[in-house]
Amino acid sequence: MADAAVRSKKPAVHKRTPAGGAPTAPHTAAEASDPRIDIAAVTDLLLGTWADTRREAREMIKDPAFWRIEGQPMAEHRERVLTQLHLLVEHGGSRRAMPEKFGGNNDNGANLAGFQELVLADPSLQIKSGVQWGLFGSAIFQLGTEKHHEEWLAGVIDLSLPGAFAMTETGHGSDVAAIGTTATYDPETEEFVIHTPFRGAYKDYLGNAALHGKAATVFAQLITGGVNYGVHCFFVPIRDDEGSMLPGIISEDDGVKGGLNGIDNGRLAFDQVRVPRFNLLDRYGQVAADGSYSSEIPSPGRRFFTMLGALVQGRVSLDGAATTGTALALHIALTYANQRRQFDSGAGTEEVVLLDYGKHQRRLLPLLAQNYAQFFSHDELLKKFDAVFSGRTDTPEEREDLETLAAALKPLSTWNALSTIQEAREACGGSGFLAENRMVGLHQDLDVYVTFEGDNNVLLQLVGKRLLADYARQFKGADAATLARYAARQTAGKLFHGAGLRQLGQAVADFGSTARSVEFGLREDQQHELLAGRVQQMVADVAAALRPASKLSPAEAAALFNSHQAELIEAARAHGELLQWEAFTDGIHRVPDEGTKQVLTWLRDLFGLHLIEKHLAWYLINGRLSTQRAASVTRYIDRLAARLRPHAQDLVDAYGFAPEHVRAPIASGAERERQDEAREYYRALAASGEAPVSEKSIKKK
Amino acid sequence: MADAAVRSKKPAVHKRTPAGGAPTAPHTAAEASDPRIDIAAVTDLLLGTWADTRREAREMIKDPAFWRIEGQPMAEHRERVLTQLHLLVEHGGSRRAMPEKFGGNNDNGANLAGFQELVLADPSLQIKSGVQWGLFGSAIFQLGTEKHHEEWLAGVIDLSLPGAFAMTETGHGSDVAAIGTTATYDPETEEFVIHTPFRGAYKDYLGNAALHGKAATVFAQLITGGVNYGVHCFFVPIRDDEGSMLPGIISEDDGVKGGLNGIDNGRLAFDQVRVPRFNLLDRYGQVAADGSYSSEIPSPGRRFFTMLGALVQGRVSLDGAATTGTALALHIALTYANQRRQFDSGAGTEEVVLLDYGKHQRRLLPLLAQNYAQFFSHDELLKKFDAVFSGRTDTPEEREDLETLAAALKPLSTWNALSTIQEAREACGGSGFLAENRMVGLHQDLDVYVTFEGDNNVLLQLVGKRLLADYARQFKGADAATLARYAARQTAGKLFHGAGLRQLGQAVADFGSTARSVEFGLREDQQHELLAGRVQQMVADVAAALRPASKLSPAEAAALFNSHQAELIEAARAHGELLQWEAFTDGIHRVPDEGTKQVLTWLRDLFGLHLIEKHLAWYLINGRLSTQRAASVTRYIDRLAARLRPHAQDLVDAYGFAPEHVRAPIASGAERERQDEAREYYRALAASGEAPVSEKSIKKK
Repeated sequence: MADAAVRSKKPAVHKRTPAGGAPTAPHTAAEASDPRIDIAAVTDLLLGTWADTRREAREMIKDPAFWRIEGQPMAEHRERVLTQLHLLVEHGGSRRAMPEKFGGNNDNGANLAGFQELVLADPSLQIKSGVQWGLFGSAIFQLGTEKHHEEWLAGVIDLSLPGAFAMTETGHGSDVAAIGTTATYDPETEEFVIHTPFRGAYKDYLGNAALHGKAATVFAQLITGGVNYGVHCFFVPIRDDEGSMLPGIISEDDGVKGGLNGIDNGRLAFDQVRVPRFNLLDRYGQVAADGSYSSEIPSPGRRFFTMLGALVQGRVSLDGAATTGTALALHIALTYANQRRQFDSGAGTEEVVLLDYGKHQRRLLPLLAQNYAQFFSHDELLKKFDAVFSGRTDTPEEREDLETLAAALKPLSTWNALSTIQEAREACGGSGFLAENRMVGLHQDLDVYVTFEGDNNVLLQLVGKRLLADYARQFKGADAATLARYAARQTAGKLFHGAGLRQLGQAVADFGSTARSVEFGLREDQQHELLAGRVQQMVADVAAALRPASKLSPAEAAALFNSHQAELIEAARAHGELLQWEAFTDGIHRVPDEGTKQVLTWLRDLFGLHLIEKHLAWYLINGRLSTQRAASVTRYIDRLAARLRPHAQDLVDAYGFAPEHVRAPIASGAERERQDEAREYYRALAASGEAPVSEKSIKKK
Repeated sequence: MADAAVRSKKPAVHKRTPAGGAPTAPHTAAEASDPRIDIAAVTDLLLGTWADTRREAREMIKDPAFWRIEGQPMAEHRERVLTQLHLLVEHGGSRRAMPEKFGGNNDNGANLAGFQELVLADPSLQIKSGVQWGLFGSAIFQLGTEKHHEEWLAGVIDLSLPGAFAMTETGHGSDVAAIGTTATYDPETEEFVIHTPFRGAYKDYLGNAALHGKAATVFAQLITGGVNYGVHCFFVPIRDDEGSMLPGIISEDDGVKGGLNGIDNGRLAFDQVRVPRFNLLDRYGQVAADGSYSSEIPSPGRRFFTMLGALVQGRVSLDGAATTGTALALHIALTYANQRRQFDSGAGTEEVVLLDYGKHQRRLLPLLAQNYAQFFSHDELLKKFDAVFSGRTDTPEEREDLETLAAALKPLSTWNALSTIQEAREACGGSGFLAENRMVGLHQDLDVYVTFEGDNNVLLQLVGKRLLADYARQFKGADAATLARYAARQTAGKLFHGAGLRQLGQAVADFGSTARSVEFGLREDQQHELLAGRVQQMVADVAAALRPASKLSPAEAAALFNSHQAELIEAARAHGELLQWEAFTDGIHRVPDEGTKQVLTWLRDLFGLHLIEKHLAWYLINGRLSTQRAASVTRYIDRLAARLRPHAQDLVDAYGFAPEHVRAPIASGAERERQDEAREYYRALAASGEAPVSEKSIKKK
């Protein structure tokens, strides 16, 4: 690994690495005599607002007791992770978000930051912690009231009360409002009767349900006085202290999963199970002894979404964990790519280092840029979460913004995790398929992140609907002046895309090569304009397409919406990408060191151009890019990749992973040792004069 | 599942399903009163030339003894698969390719077809069979001579001689020519000394190496008389009958892998291990007792590639197995999507079947079309393989074509397997993550298909180089007439893309809607022209970019090639896609039934348009599609997806899988039963008059 201590600080100048992408390119920034990053400073930047907590968590998980053992049978893995949770309690890892009276320090941001780092030890540990403290515990804390906290939180925190979060049913995942489980109030006994009316209403995929949970926070339709008040949450004991199921509770094991097999996911069903009225977690809706219902939120819809919104931290947490897990895979694959050699270049006997191949740069470096962007956007999300949940900015508007932001970012980071980890594993060939090198395990464990805590497509559809609503709001009751201003903005945008860009390009062309002038036309402002303009227009296009809906029958309106569903989801994705890009850019603006700023700007450009290239057809069809400029995007990406190649090791070293976090033998330096040994063998053989000659050389004689 | 027996045969007419993509769309072809496929006939079509063998293999693996047990610990899984291999021997599955004298029937095509179907039982079984009979056995059969066959083939076939195929080394995977293992001839004793000179030269990732192999076919640099004659293959015993390592042989276990854990992959190293001269598999190169070397192929390069080419069947086999494994995932996900309901449409109380969502059609149906194309292209590949290996068309040119075809198709089908299986698993939400529903296991097992038997990117680069060579050959020594003909063809192409298309569109517009006229401009001939034209131009562009190389130094030439590596790989991918499309189209032309032909034509169109959409930016930048026409591609895909929606179940039923092959509970009809039970519960509750009323309804009062 590069040594941060010996880095040279050079001013940011527009030097190029020689012979872009050639097998003879420099391997380090020092060789390239380029500006280079201040590795330690970039680590601080990536660790973000709660860097201290993250470092503390990383220090803790250097202990092998926290590490995943590859190939461990499911039963043993489950017990090991339970033990790790107890260890976590001992280290104070379970109380950061809790109020002072429960020994916590009421720090929501630090809490999530600390849990996210656990993905480096074992994603099962991260997620089982999330089940216990982020879902089961949070349901009690966020949806319950003082009396519930007093009763159960201490047991949640010290893990004497492990629990399951029983929301999803076999028949209803994304559509929580339609779950079948009922909680019918019986005023005679002042109890709720929790019941599973049919097979599809079994609670399913619940961590802690198959083995370890003693209780569950069960979401059910609250029925009292013959009226269904919608989904509410109930505390339901499920196992006694010996681990036997309580009467009326049925548990099934979900068995082996694609990953996360350290968690005992399972099903729960309830056969007329009675719990005291006390057990309704009643922050947002109360039932009096006589069965009368009350709530401070009169609208059933708003009440439902408020309750779900209180549990947004799962999504926030996955965004961060997916980003860190992806970083680990990139660290491994790029470190290996910087040491592994294969094929000589045809220009000599020396074999070529993988990362010197044009294709290898192309397949990995844009993903590195994307991952960097995610670190910055995640920190923004976490700050917003902390501000709302600390109460500092806890308004309905801020809550809605937070939920939309989480719904926009979590899908992108979790999908990117899978595609990046897969590309990283393939880039390591056969060694990438060995479990010891971590990447296959990361892919298996993180796979479910894309469909749990909100299916990614469903979340993006929510974001899309919010974008549509915001768009419509601009015009709602707008006076003539507002509409005129809007029209003017639109025109300004068009002008900028048309004449504006072209003019800039022309002016710059006077300074030198066409290549450079094209690049100037794709710098920060233009990237932003292209990315933001795309979101704006996609939303406007969907809105226009849906406009006739108001005049249609409900069935026809549904059909019309359905025929634009895929487009709406794409618009939401574009919005999320823009947010990532903006967060990365804001982050760079805060960097004081010039060398760091320069390299990170290249990396941000690579991310921006990578996004633009991905959607190039859209830009062309919508007249946002000329064919000439579009063609230059790919060439610019190639140049950026070559320019960043010497910085790749610095950039993955800046993740700040210690050997105890990486653990993959191929990223340990063993590969370089093997390469060196082999080359030394051939050198010595040649020097000995005893090397066999090649058949070709004797044929020539 | 739809019942093939009651299908109606209707003539192919241009009927549309009502309200494309709407939640009210028909779910079956019968409801849509569309033309529909003859399911049994399509099954025959998909099973292809060796349908009988495939049916026989599928019948055999209905026996649960062949099935993968999810979550089985590695050690037990390895033993189970070994037992399955013995079962296979009993069923005659190991001798199809062998000569009559060894009890075989010399049928190469049937042999691979039979092995490929094993992927449905357990991919570990398919691949371990491939190691034993396709690699180890084939090395003896293809690279050895009569005397070797007599000595070892019987043991290979009856599995009394399990073996490893020791080609790849830790330090050299794709670059086989550079392996470090040496085989030095000692004329004193008439032995070869097999030796591993350094750590990187350990043979690695070899099935049967960690536990079960008694011998290995070891690739090593053949050195005799002080000359290195390049890589040759040697038969080397490694374990005695008690399973102990023989002297000088070192074995290491590769441990847990991302999948295929039923196979005992491991490493082998050799410390001056002596084998008799007899053990050189000497079909393509012989060493006499005195150490003199001879070969009927004088060029070392051609000899090397001839030896490797003799082992092309691994790639052929993976192309078929990946295609069948993908089909299984699509069968499961589409069957589930046709039963699972989630969210009401807003137009009533009935929940919407997943496959009625626009996004769901969009995410799965193009992948179904792609998988169909692969069945047809695989059969072409298998026929070519059979023709060459049976000797019917065994010429150097045909061998080269076969190798190029395999190198083009295997990367596409194996990558498509991973992306399709992943999309299928995500489309099934949480249930898709359960191992019992098969998709996660298929992804884990098939993961390594993209990097073994030739890394996909390396294979595509080989194809790209062949395309460049063929392109250059057109002009080599071309006379004026040839060049003129070529120029004319180019111009004709351009005319066709320009005025030609537009004219056609205009003419058709007279018949009716714009939508239809656009479609006519994207039918078979135009799809072919677009796909083929892209390959042609991409190759021409790379060739033009590389032209200066002849005037450069070797280092500069290598750098120039490297800077176009990614483009060359893309050109090869485009070539592979074209081949798949052409095979699908040829297959449809052979269909007699009009309904089948119509539906499969829609499916082929979906595949073609899906490819064109994927590369839309290229078509726009290169002036092959106008922005208007490009915009219509996406709309046409949406319409095709909606039109094919009622046929989805028929199309996956036509894969011909029995419940014993599918096994996934979510595709068993259990989901429909659960949905029906839930709806019946609510219906009965409503009828009873005891259903709780909604909160909303009492608020209105």
